[in-house]
Amino acid sequence: MQTVSRPSGRASDQLRPIAIERRFTRHAEGSVLVSFGDTRVLCTASIEDRVPPWLRGKGEGWITAEYGMLPRATHTRMQREAAKGGQGGRTMEIQRLIGRSLRACVNRQALGERVITLDCDVIQADGGTRTAAITGGYVALVDAVNHLMKRENLKRNPIIGAIAAVSVGIYKGQPVLDLDYAEDSDCDTDMNVVMNDGGGFIEVQGTAEGHAFRRDEMDALLALAEKGVDELVAAQRAALAEG
Amino acid sequence: MQTVSRPSGRASDQLRPIAIERRFTRHAEGSVLVSFGDTRVLCTASIEDRVPPWLRGKGEGWITAEYGMLPRATHTRMQREAAKGGQGGRTMEIQRLIGRSLRACVNRQALGERVITLDCDVIQADGGTRTAAITGGYVALVDAVNHLMKRENLKRNPIIGAIAAVSVGIYKGQPVLDLDYAEDSDCDTDMNVVMNDGGGFIEVQGTAEGHAFRRDEMDALLALAEKGVDELVAAQRAALAEG
Amino acid sequence: MQTVSRPSGRASDQLRPIAIERRFTRHAEGSVLVSFGDTRVLCTASIEDRVPPWLRGKGEGWITAEYGMLPRATHTRMQREAAKGGQGGRTMEIQRLIGRSLRACVNRQALGERVITLDCDVIQADGGTRTAAITGGYVALVDAVNHLMKRENLKRNPIIGAIAAVSVGIYKGQPVLDLDYAEDSDCDTDMNVVMNDGGGFIEVQGTAEGHAFRRDEMDALLALAEKGVDELVAAQRAALAEG
Amino acid sequence: MQTVSRPSGRASDQLRPIAIERRFTRHAEGSVLVSFGDTRVLCTASIEDRVPPWLRGKGEGWITAEYGMLPRATHTRMQREAAKGGQGGRTMEIQRLIGRSLRACVNRQALGERVITLDCDVIQADGGTRTAAITGGYVALVDAVNHLMKRENLKRNPIIGAIAAVSVGIYKGQPVLDLDYAEDSDCDTDMNVVMNDGGGFIEVQGTAEGHAFRRDEMDALLALAEKGVDELVAAQRAALAEG
Amino acid sequence: MQTVSRPSGRASDQLRPIAIERRFTRHAEGSVLVSFGDTRVLCTASIEDRVPPWLRGKGEGWITAEYGMLPRATHTRMQREAAKGGQGGRTMEIQRLIGRSLRACVNRQALGERVITLDCDVIQADGGTRTAAITGGYVALVDAVNHLMKRENLKRNPIIGAIAAVSVGIYKGQPVLDLDYAEDSDCDTDMNVVMNDGGGFIEVQGTAEGHAFRRDEMDALLALAEKGVDELVAAQRAALAEG
Amino acid sequence: MQTVSRPSGRASDQLRPIAIERRFTRHAEGSVLVSFGDTRVLCTASIEDRVPPWLRGKGEGWITAEYGMLPRATHTRMQREAAKGGQGGRTMEIQRLIGRSLRACVNRQALGERVITLDCDVIQADGGTRTAAITGGYVALVDAVNHLMKRENLKRNPIIGAIAAVSVGIYKGQPVLDLDYAEDSDCDTDMNVVMNDGGGFIEVQGTAEGHAFRRDEMDALLALAEKGVDELVAAQRAALAEG
Repeated sequence: MQTVSRPSGRASDQLRPIAIERRFTRHAEGSVLVSFGDTRVLCTASIEDRVPPWLRGKGEGWITAEYGMLPRATHTRMQREAAKGGQGGRTMEIQRLIGRSLRACVNRQALGERVITLDCDVIQADGGTRTAAITGGYVALVDAVNHLMKRENLKRNPIIGAIAAVSVGIYKGQPVLDLDYAEDSDCDTDMNVVMNDGGGFIEVQGTAEGHAFRRDEMDALLALAEKGVDELVAAQRAALAEG
Repeated sequence: MQTVSRPSGRASDQLRPIAIERRFTRHAEGSVLVSFGDTRVLCTASIEDRVPPWLRGKGEGWITAEYGMLPRATHTRMQREAAKGGQGGRTMEIQRLIGRSLRACVNRQALGERVITLDCDVIQADGGTRTAAITGGYVALVDAVNHLMKRENLKRNPIIGAIAAVSVGIYKGQPVLDLDYAEDSDCDTDMNVVMNDGGGFIEVQGTAEGHAFRRDEMDALLALAEKGVDELVAAQRAALAEG
Repeated sequence: MQTVSRPSGRASDQLRPIAIERRFTRHAEGSVLVSFGDTRVLCTASIEDRVPPWLRGKGEGWITAEYGMLPRATHTRMQREAAKGGQGGRTMEIQRLIGRSLRACVNRQALGERVITLDCDVIQADGGTRTAAITGGYVALVDAVNHLMKRENLKRNPIIGAIAAVSVGIYKGQPVLDLDYAEDSDCDTDMNVVMNDGGGFIEVQGTAEGHAFRRDEMDALLALAEKGVDELVAAQRAALAEG
Repeated sequence: MQTVSRPSGRASDQLRPIAIERRFTRHAEGSVLVSFGDTRVLCTASIEDRVPPWLRGKGEGWITAEYGMLPRATHTRMQREAAKGGQGGRTMEIQRLIGRSLRACVNRQALGERVITLDCDVIQADGGTRTAAITGGYVALVDAVNHLMKRENLKRNPIIGAIAAVSVGIYKGQPVLDLDYAEDSDCDTDMNVVMNDGGGFIEVQGTAEGHAFRRDEMDALLALAEKGVDELVAAQRAALAEG
Repeated sequence: MQTVSRPSGRASDQLRPIAIERRFTRHAEGSVLVSFGDTRVLCTASIEDRVPPWLRGKGEGWITAEYGMLPRATHTRMQREAAKGGQGGRTMEIQRLIGRSLRACVNRQALGERVITLDCDVIQADGGTRTAAITGGYVALVDAVNHLMKRENLKRNPIIGAIAAVSVGIYKGQPVLDLDYAEDSDCDTDMNVVMNDGGGFIEVQGTAEGHAFRRDEMDALLALAEKGVDELVAAQRAALAEG
Repeated sequence: MQTVSRPSGRASDQLRPIAIERRFTRHAEGSVLVSFGDTRVLCTASIEDRVPPWLRGKGEGWITAEYGMLPRATHTRMQREAAKGGQGGRTMEIQRLIGRSLRACVNRQALGERVITLDCDVIQADGGTRTAAITGGYVALVDAVNHLMKRENLKRNPIIGAIAAVSVGIYKGQPVLDLDYAEDSDCDTDMNVVMNDGGGFIEVQGTAEGHAFRRDEMDALLALAEKGVDELVAAQRAALAEG
């Protein structure tokens, strides 16, 4: 297969520059500004001493997520969801994905009867906002849990692994890693892959935008995603090591 | 791997009994009651001579879907979404999936400036309502398009392939095909796979409910899905052949 | 008065073919598909061990109803109320009528602190959906109450009579029984009559669509309704006798 | 039948004191404060030079109504519907009734492509608010139409008759006219009757609150309603004669 | 500065005719129809034995307000907020202002754990509805508190002062008191001033509609407002003295 | 008057450190992150070639504003307004204030038939978010207008002056400038003052939280506000001079 040049000039298996800035705001127990290139998402983790009704008295906690986009995070202004009177289908789909993904790295018994809410607000969008939100949200979650462990003197660490996510897709016939907006709006297949640091899959969501994708294309995409997640987990570790 | 017995007694690669009843109601251009075992979904296809605002004057049509569940389709009564004042996140996620999947088998230029809406209403739920909706919705869509071709004397058939969907999952450590409710509520991994009749993938949505799934498990699940979709496409053909 | 021929060829005092199919779905305590000709309504009765706030601690129960129409139950597709963000005036009016009507056959002290919700969803509409819903809903209610009496070993039967409903109207100057859609959209007066099996009136709702109706016309309509309800009560009894 | 004394001391066929005050506010084309005893409803009629979408280009107009209750029109404060986020079922039912009733006295071709909206707002409630609204709304409608005829030099008067409404019911076993709140909350049967000045029925809505009502009771109620409407039409005429 | 003639012929420091009619409706504990010229607002005060969640168990009460406008209180009909599905920004802004203003005259400990809700509904609008609502609302509040003191035998009077409000503005270059609609829609600066009977300011809300206002203009406006509030407090006292 | 020490150690007439960072995000025509101490608000200005319905064909434009707070901008997490289903009263009040204030510096004829929307989203809150939003929003507006002037070759600059805003209040008896959260939650009077660079007042909104404020206190507050706005206008100029 010949190599297609990407709009950004990246190699087909190359992530955008990744930045993870902790303590971006001061009130939240965890607050991370994550950048995947020009995509920037503010992820805050908030601890509350309550559980949803269906968990009352069960001795375990919950992790949930909400997602939003500032109206002018995008090329043209989008209507504010609060002004429209509710969250749209895309927003709900994304925040459900973030919540499910991050629950996969938490021992909810060890957390105790508490809710941690991840608010992922897109400051600037350039493709891959949901994967950036999961990757940055994980770091905010760890910060919040560390805060909680100190404050409450928890015996066990509720965090049982690391979670990161990346998109892969087929752009002009070639599998590529970490699609930016220019690629995303012109690709045939788009897949979001959430994995843990043990190489296990948490979520795989692939969509054929143009032609259906073949089994061998899927294999190539999954291999790219594994490489990308490895690098993202390393970036998370580096950020968390800064103390 | 030892064989685990499924609650229904089915083999691990066995679909539930599939039934596709066309012309279930008489007003819609396509109307199909599809059954995947005890899961029954009424799929109607309605043609309207309008397009959404962003397609006006472009000479092409649109396929969209809405999904609903009757309040007592489930074991315990669920609140009616119309009474709650809006569709929830799960509903939106499912109807977006159905719409995207069925658009993949339509040549929208050949359709012309028309909308076909698939209404998929769950009469009885026992797991796999979204895959049943896609599989039955395809048949309703074909009936509606045939109706349209006769009425409007279209030159080209807008249908360019067949689409079917099935769930697969890892139940008690074993990959199984077409999860029913008993399996779905007790499985580790749940994957919905939408394919066309050429063996291409349209959508793959896999979720680790318990432990993360390995690459070899994913391969086994995709193989099961391919087998299931083959059988579903055959059932669609048989139903459509009845005239 | 000369006899006007009805679009359906029925005699002026003739009901459409009535069918009452019990146990149409399997989760609800009562589940009935009722047909008044081409009008088909699925009525499920769901028991919950709770009461509305204003009845707490009073030792009595409640019967309530919700009504919905599948979007393509009608000739042209109607917008889904869940997608519009709420139930319209017509829906509310009808479900209030169904609830009031069915409460008239229940001893709420004998029921105890429980709610039974009748969900009446129109699968196919051809006029008279509300009267079909009441007539079928009664049978679903009886099935649910019988289920409850066995399960909870109730001493007294909370059902104190039978309830059925039919529409009557003045079509081309002639009083007729059980209007179908063709008659309903072209009649001068339309009246829905709910009665019990003792010949007592529970609800009478008459509307002059065209010219105002005279007292003698009203008398003729009420006589037709009494005849129709007699036959509907017999059909309910026959259905319930099937065991 | 022995005579039961009514809480208000009225005879069984006696209306409450009726007052119809025209030009109660100055902006509306018709503005009437109607009193049925302590029930006071402000009815304004507003003319707009537009029609609903389904009437565009048909050369005829429309009459519609909206109903509201000030939060403390009642014994205990009710939540404001604007603050709750929408109109409830009772409100919708009533405003649909008012609109249908008043359309029955209008020649919509003679009105031309205009909408007249009747806003009926209950200032103080003591039973019978919907019948007061219809009776007073008619007078506001006539004032608005007269205003329009002068302004636009219409050839034909769009008003083709008078409309009034009254409630009747069975209170402690005895048929009575024009129920007040004390009777309404303690009666067995409640019926709202809308009639025109030719003695024709426009709407009859009867509800058995306690035991079902018999045919002879219904006859007695209708006779009382006819008497009441006669007197209300006379009161409307007297008010309109004042110039 | 030369004197500009006001549309109403009033002197620049002259209020419109003020009327305060107590006991306008009979169910509310306080019920006042207040008129500032052609602006008429019905203010009712309702006592409830509950407090908002954040005050539970603190031994103090709360004063809150809701504001509404009948659809045809204005020159052209405005859409009913209950039908639109919610209160608009202007409504919320005004009712928050009324609530804050009237809380300033109440000792909430002396009130005890109760809520008093002021419903201010505009029957007819001609400018200054919010200032009329505060001025009339105060009288309704005093009536409700007096009712409560008798009924509950309170030891201390929760009312600790009087509150009144008036608008001032710069009309054609000249500071004027109590703007009516004709002035309000054609003025450069509009200021609402809420004061107590000790000459203290509770709220000052000034807006430059046209050119920005200078400090000396602001001084002139505040002086006019002080004069107007003095007269309004006198009118409140006179109304309350009537017994 | 003795000097009270402020929690922040500032002098009574001292602003917090002010920072105005332009081009904070790249899609919007104007994008400013403004900081008043720990209060940080992202203000973006978006140009659209449309006008609201009431301005169509009038040859002039419009400036509007929307305000939001990220859920964890505050000490404890607030519910997301999009998830609650609408904007609350405080949000509406603030965004109406921002829009009115910034319209005061724009010649809407010179702007032409365009809308500029200011989105003011609070990233971190520590008191004074609305005054920071107005002050930063002005800079974003100027950047957007300059962008427009270049792109469209406008003849006249639509910006006719500068606008800035600051809060003042009485904290422990002493008038102070630019309240932070610690002061805001413990002050007697809180006033937001919007002014232009000519020393004219655009908006004055003062509220007595505790005791009513006297005329001499108001004079002191206005003097502080004038000093603060002078410094803010200088900071705006410096930021805009950076090119």
